[in-house]
Amino acid sequence: MYQYLNHIDSPDDLKKLKPEHLLDLAAEVRRFLLEKVSVTGGHLGSNLGTVELSIALLYCFDSPNDKIIWDVGHQAYTHKILTGRRDRFHTQRQYKGLSGFPKRSESEHDAFGVGHSSTSISAALGMAAAADLAGAKNHAIAVIGDGSLTGGMAFEALNQAGHLKKDLIVILNDNEMSISKNVGAFSSFISRKMTGRYFRDLKKEMQGLLRNIPAIGSDILHFARRAENSLKSFLTPGSLFEALGFDYLGPLDGHDLPQLIEVFNNINQLDGPLLVHVMTTKGKGYKPAEENPDKFHGVGPFDIVTGKATSSTSARSYTELFGEAMVDLAEQDPRVVAITAAMRDGTGLKTFSERFPKRFFDVGIAEQHAMTFAAGLAADGFRPVTAIYSTFVQRAYDQVFHDICLQKLPVTIAMDRAGLVGDDGPTHHGVMDYSFLRHIPGLALMAPKDENELRHMLKTAVTSGVPISLRYPRGAGMGVELDRDLKTLDIGRGELLMEGSDICLIAIGSTVYPALQAAHSLQGLGVRVGVVNARFIKPLDAELILSVAGSCGRIMTVEENLLQGGFGSAVLELLNDNNMQDVIVRRLGIPDRFVEHGSQARLRQDLGIDAEGIAAAALAFLKQ
Amino acid sequence: MYQYLNHIDSPDDLKKLKPEHLLDLAAEVRRFLLEKVSVTGGHLGSNLGTVELSIALLYCFDSPNDKIIWDVGHQAYTHKILTGRRDRFHTQRQYKGLSGFPKRSESEHDAFGVGHSSTSISAALGMAAAADLAGAKNHAIAVIGDGSLTGGMAFEALNQAGHLKKDLIVILNDNEMSISKNVGAFSSFISRKMTGRYFRDLKKEMQGLLRNIPAIGSDILHFARRAENSLKSFLTPGSLFEALGFDYLGPLDGHDLPQLIEVFNNINQLDGPLLVHVMTTKGKGYKPAEENPDKFHGVGPFDIVTGKATSSTSARSYTELFGEAMVDLAEQDPRVVAITAAMRDGTGLKTFSERFPKRFFDVGIAEQHAMTFAAGLAADGFRPVTAIYSTFVQRAYDQVFHDICLQKLPVTIAMDRAGLVGDDGPTHHGVMDYSFLRHIPGLALMAPKDENELRHMLKTAVTSGVPISLRYPRGAGMGVELDRDLKTLDIGRGELLMEGSDICLIAIGSTVYPALQAAHSLQGLGVRVGVVNARFIKPLDAELILSVAGSCGRIMTVEENLLQGGFGSAVLELLNDNNMQDVIVRRLGIPDRFVEHGSQARLRQDLGIDAEGIAAAALAFLKQ
Repeated sequence: MYQYLNHIDSPDDLKKLKPEHLLDLAAEVRRFLLEKVSVTGGHLGSNLGTVELSIALLYCFDSPNDKIIWDVGHQAYTHKILTGRRDRFHTQRQYKGLSGFPKRSESEHDAFGVGHSSTSISAALGMAAAADLAGAKNHAIAVIGDGSLTGGMAFEALNQAGHLKKDLIVILNDNEMSISKNVGAFSSFISRKMTGRYFRDLKKEMQGLLRNIPAIGSDILHFARRAENSLKSFLTPGSLFEALGFDYLGPLDGHDLPQLIEVFNNINQLDGPLLVHVMTTKGKGYKPAEENPDKFHGVGPFDIVTGKATSSTSARSYTELFGEAMVDLAEQDPRVVAITAAMRDGTGLKTFSERFPKRFFDVGIAEQHAMTFAAGLAADGFRPVTAIYSTFVQRAYDQVFHDICLQKLPVTIAMDRAGLVGDDGPTHHGVMDYSFLRHIPGLALMAPKDENELRHMLKTAVTSGVPISLRYPRGAGMGVELDRDLKTLDIGRGELLMEGSDICLIAIGSTVYPALQAAHSLQGLGVRVGVVNARFIKPLDAELILSVAGSCGRIMTVEENLLQGGFGSAVLELLNDNNMQDVIVRRLGIPDRFVEHGSQARLRQDLGIDAEGIAAAALAFLKQ
Repeated sequence: MYQYLNHIDSPDDLKKLKPEHLLDLAAEVRRFLLEKVSVTGGHLGSNLGTVELSIALLYCFDSPNDKIIWDVGHQAYTHKILTGRRDRFHTQRQYKGLSGFPKRSESEHDAFGVGHSSTSISAALGMAAAADLAGAKNHAIAVIGDGSLTGGMAFEALNQAGHLKKDLIVILNDNEMSISKNVGAFSSFISRKMTGRYFRDLKKEMQGLLRNIPAIGSDILHFARRAENSLKSFLTPGSLFEALGFDYLGPLDGHDLPQLIEVFNNINQLDGPLLVHVMTTKGKGYKPAEENPDKFHGVGPFDIVTGKATSSTSARSYTELFGEAMVDLAEQDPRVVAITAAMRDGTGLKTFSERFPKRFFDVGIAEQHAMTFAAGLAADGFRPVTAIYSTFVQRAYDQVFHDICLQKLPVTIAMDRAGLVGDDGPTHHGVMDYSFLRHIPGLALMAPKDENELRHMLKTAVTSGVPISLRYPRGAGMGVELDRDLKTLDIGRGELLMEGSDICLIAIGSTVYPALQAAHSLQGLGVRVGVVNARFIKPLDAELILSVAGSCGRIMTVEENLLQGGFGSAVLELLNDNNMQDVIVRRLGIPDRFVEHGSQARLRQDLGIDAEGIAAAALAFLKQ
């Protein structure tokens, strides 16, 4: 079925192929990708775009001796398939299966674990410096997309690389698109290619200049000035990278395998850093993906022939309802503006961006800037909502502290994909936000129990006039009915959902419904159980929590966050500050380790924070 | 005494001066700066460099309607002096006095609070967007140094600014030096000025080209190619910023006040973002500072005539002993390398950099990249130590998680200036690191009680083979004797310093000696008091802490960190996980608010974490 692919279990096997068979291999890999990803779901478009590049890198370089680092890593499927993981590839992103991202513990060919954007040049430069210090001759190669280049740390790394002059290879995988359509001046700049049109324009300019030479006589200086001015507008990406101290090669057609191989084979001794500019097409070779790259960036199972999803969920997602509420709030209040870091669709802001194009800002993969840009808007009277996945807000921790909270500016930080995200695994779980945000003075922090409460919390946030954050899960809501009007909640007030005197479950966010369900099954066993929806991690509803703690004497906190410094920890602090040492507390949540990938349901089950786990833990606790 | 300065209490007063008197004013401001800073200490060199620029901005623009944002802000003294704060300027950086940085709550002329680097373009762009949405005509002006431009978020902001095309003015204050000598390809690039030499070289190149025209005949394309190639090497900063969508003006002499005023007055209607490149000299007008800009970046009180410090401390600093230990460790282990983010001298790495130049890396103001670069080195066998002030490690929170800890790479994060830093105030206090690091799985976290223990902890770190961090205070050590040899401590082991059965003080880092002192005075009152030096925030010494907690029944934790999620919180979690609800706990530390500036001693006293405060709190606790 796969004439060539079936025999490739390592780069060594690949190198045994004759160059003329590599094109057939590429076709096989593409077919393999479609077959597998259409069943498991995963990142498709970006992987179809890097088939030839992956083959060429493994064919020409000497992995694992040479270090190949894929930035973000959701385009490294071909790399995985050709480095001994073909047979397990159908398990990718499944529980206990292969990771969807390169991972050091998975293969020696994954030189550096990735997931978050813009880290590859830094890591590769570290490895280039290591090779230099060790007197080794291996190459360090970072493969980075044009979208990832908008992340500031990529620039920090380029800046040092141009200065250090180590043997570093940066491959710019330029598909003129990150996850959403790329933004930023830099992007439009690097897309000015050495095209035919480029040369025609340049020719015209130079002709104009030369015609004027007699007129300016010997005043060569004037000529030079004018030549320079006219050429400025023709700056190429090459000249920019050269200015930063890189040698530049390209742009190359990233699907022209023979050319890639010829170029890579000619890269031997480097004299300082080299940037190879490669043009690829997202979704290459699969029409539905080429035509609709946004949709095929990350997909669930789909039908290969039609390109249509084969599964669908009924309940509407938190993301979708967040987006709708943003539109409602923007209609009510002209101060409401929305900011995303290259995730317009992922954060549900597409409709907002179309309805209020002037009040919508996509800053690129630039979470740090996103927060401070929002702070600037807030300082001058606006009520920005910055919508970023929880795991990526980690990039902007300092800006949340320094630019928003320290100045008490009314920015709303909307953290989508908080808690366990499922298939993307440890790089993407949003299970630290309670811990890294709740200690920042002046920042309120909420988590809704369902999609309806999310809408009210969003209104609460934008009308609060203070720095405030809310986190909500990836995926479908609870399917609850939606109130017609958005309400303002009292900041720092939870709600008592059930009263009981034996034990009280104090839950927050995604754990409230499971806690309720657990409570009902405990009631069936004769346990008098109370349930609190805390709503606020900060400020805690001290009155409510102290009251139920006092009356039950036994409370269990439940959260989808690390236990260290999280919600339960905040409750312990509250009780301690109020001398409630008589109250016995049990904390449920994520223990002190990284959580691997798998479905959200399965991971919650493993961690004991689904309804069954909560009920079992409560029963054990009651026996204690 | 100050003919002009004494009458300037606002920008309006300034605008009343005739242009010809501004030069006299500048001289007066310089004299004023020297007189005041030589008494109070503070940032000197950078402020002497921005006298004319500050005057010109306030003279030509309309603050506070126009927003002037000084990046970092330690060069905004003239701005403060001319905006109504002259009479209080002698209180700057003093307890309850003026802040050393621009601060929104201090003046309407401080458009945005600063302290950490590279935020100004983001904030100004937010304000430019706000003005645009509000239909206002005011300007937003970011003044940013060439050093701050190496911070990735500045690039993120430039990238969006070139795309958005709002009316934004960025003033590049180029003194070819950040705090230490500037590094990075970008820096050497922007320093290629439009100098006479530049034009001579360009002229020569173009002459060469023109001589060849007959030879290539009508093949204009070849000519264009060659012209372009030759011009590439003459790329100017202007062309780079223009490529990013900015208009470019400069470079201007930043001490030529009439020229600055002429240029600024001509900036009216903008058509998109403008970058004005201004050259300044650090320490301008004061010879000792011009000749020794590193030394005069931040100074204590000094003698104006000699430039020599008028006060000195006897005990050696943590920083200094860290630097020495780094040299010792590097001698013992060739895998040890050192990384700093533009703070070579500030982190004590000067000697290391001279002894081991190849093993020393200054990455620029780029904390994110610093961590991932270190991770790359660690992945390939090295034992990097990344030395960064605690407050700036906040910038790299995500990289510590994603690139170091998730991959279990043996990087040591050395956090200088942790705890209360004193005069620099809330932007610079390092009082959150326990809280933002201790929840990250797999990261060990230490704090030494004195400079001798710091040395052993550093050895422990680099030999540990795991991700590990240590934090130590700004300033002088405890003056203790130093062990000759560096020792390896047991990870997760504290030490019992005093035994006692009434109460046990569990202290960590800078609070251990004050706790001991408090214990001695409590002993004098007949209290049987124990003292533990916890050494590790993570892993906690569970055995020791549970043992003293069990035997005393009453413990008090003491830390120089926010109480939320901090060390005491970790102890509460430990006790709770071990069902020790009988133990009564009191937590001393920094409450849930930002701490203003003032001397470290005074702030510790205010917060009750000096010896007296600890003793008083313990006594009150015992009566409870």
